[in-house]
Amino acid sequence: MTELLTFPAASASLLENRLPPTQAPASLSRPFVTLTFATSLDSSLSLAPGVRTRLSGPGSKAMTHYIRSRHAAILIGVSTLLADSPALNCRITGAASQPRPIIVDPHLRWTPDPADKVLELARLGHGLAPFVLTGVHAHALPTANVALLEQHGGKYISLATTLSAPSRRIRFDWHVVFDALFQEGLLSIMVEGGGQIINSLLDPRFHALVDSIIVTIAPTWLGQGGVVVSPRRLQDSAGIPIPVARLSNVSWHPFGEDVVLCGKLHP
Amino acid sequence: MTELLTFPAASASLLENRLPPTQAPASLSRPFVTLTFATSLDSSLSLAPGVRTRLSGPGSKAMTHYIRSRHAAILIGVSTLLADSPALNCRITGAASQPRPIIVDPHLRWTPDPADKVLELARLGHGLAPFVLTGVHAHALPTANVALLEQHGGKYISLATTLSAPSRRIRFDWHVVFDALFQEGLLSIMVEGGGQIINSLLDPRFHALVDSIIVTIAPTWLGQGGVVVSPRRLQDSAGIPIPVARLSNVSWHPFGEDVVLCGKLHP
Repeated sequence: MTELLTFPAASASLLENRLPPTQAPASLSRPFVTLTFATSLDSSLSLAPGVRTRLSGPGSKAMTHYIRSRHAAILIGVSTLLADSPALNCRITGAASQPRPIIVDPHLRWTPDPADKVLELARLGHGLAPFVLTGVHAHALPTANVALLEQHGGKYISLATTLSAPSRRIRFDWHVVFDALFQEGLLSIMVEGGGQIINSLLDPRFHALVDSIIVTIAPTWLGQGGVVVSPRRLQDSAGIPIPVARLSNVSWHPFGEDVVLCGKLHP
Repeated sequence: MTELLTFPAASASLLENRLPPTQAPASLSRPFVTLTFATSLDSSLSLAPGVRTRLSGPGSKAMTHYIRSRHAAILIGVSTLLADSPALNCRITGAASQPRPIIVDPHLRWTPDPADKVLELARLGHGLAPFVLTGVHAHALPTANVALLEQHGGKYISLATTLSAPSRRIRFDWHVVFDALFQEGLLSIMVEGGGQIINSLLDPRFHALVDSIIVTIAPTWLGQGGVVVSPRRLQDSAGIPIPVARLSNVSWHPFGEDVVLCGKLHP
């Protein structure tokens, strides 16, 4: 539970200009957003939805926790929470504070339970309780859930939703999400996954909101049918497919058997 | 047409132990096989079948031609030939000889035409005419096609086929393919694509035939619907998906904006 990780200073210095400044500039009008995840060579996050898949090497875990230590909040989709029951805390040696877990849960699929790891860690003082972003109106939230979250120091935040055209499911606009988190005083957000979250954030409508991308790639092919990072197709005015995103300011850092790619979605 | 490319010696030396030895060992019983291709971050070779997609930087082209200079033959699937009409020659400065193009064409989809670039280059002495591997029996081959290929120095090679279970299409067994090429005196084969060829060679049944893997990854997402490198899913005896392939002996080489991954499919 209290296993501590260390991340070498030499590796940390390679990431330094990819992370939010330790002192946020006074002119900040939205949070600094870092998108980070690990994939296979065939761009899969895992073998199948809900299957936890060891992809990257041991050094990668320490890197993730180091990056967490440099953000005010870490954001995941509810599917990842339900599949993995992740700890969502920071276990790097010498971390000054814990990041706030943010759960994107438009339909309120998660029913908090005292046995959930994220709540257990909050009770132990090893992490913070989550803020849950939902499309359900505040007055329609189950009171027991509200009380349980608030006992742990977390809460629900009800946001305006949009209807996603292809799937007819309700979705958040990322502008609304990051505005709400900024209002909460969360000035830096690390977006960790899963696939739906990442793919939607790679949509060109939201590129201007993303300040830094850090992708770890492991030298393995998981095979067809995995949970794939690949944003929705983009077409030009003639209907011809065009690339969705190209990174600028690119650097590649071999890291054990893996490689870490850093870049930006806009110049 | 005669544009010549140069590949820096420092870069070449990084690849040296990934390439076939310049002097093939006398004990060789099958060709040295190098599998090489370039993908996007979402593992796409191109935006759509038949759409030539510029992925990797200018240095990558010189690397491809340098690797071609180190192989006796370069192999592609007929879909790639029909889509791109590629030159399939080697344009590196100081190349001692040209590689033999090998076209995998089980159903004889290609009808050779004197205007095809690969035949034009053979006439000009800037490349070799292809060997076409087909499932059509020698006596059933169109005589005009046979004559045209042979005039250019190429030929058909008829191979035994198998019926692919999922698609009900005829396919070659890679053992049969590489045996036939070895019989032709081709001791090193560079496999370049496209997607079907690469995915089938990444099947664990054929890992022992592949000596070296060189993948260039460009820092771009093409989006869903591209021609994807991702081998057929593998399951354990309980039906649980497991990773299809993991590289050993891995090295990553940043190369302009891209990264070049080298590895092996077996220890």
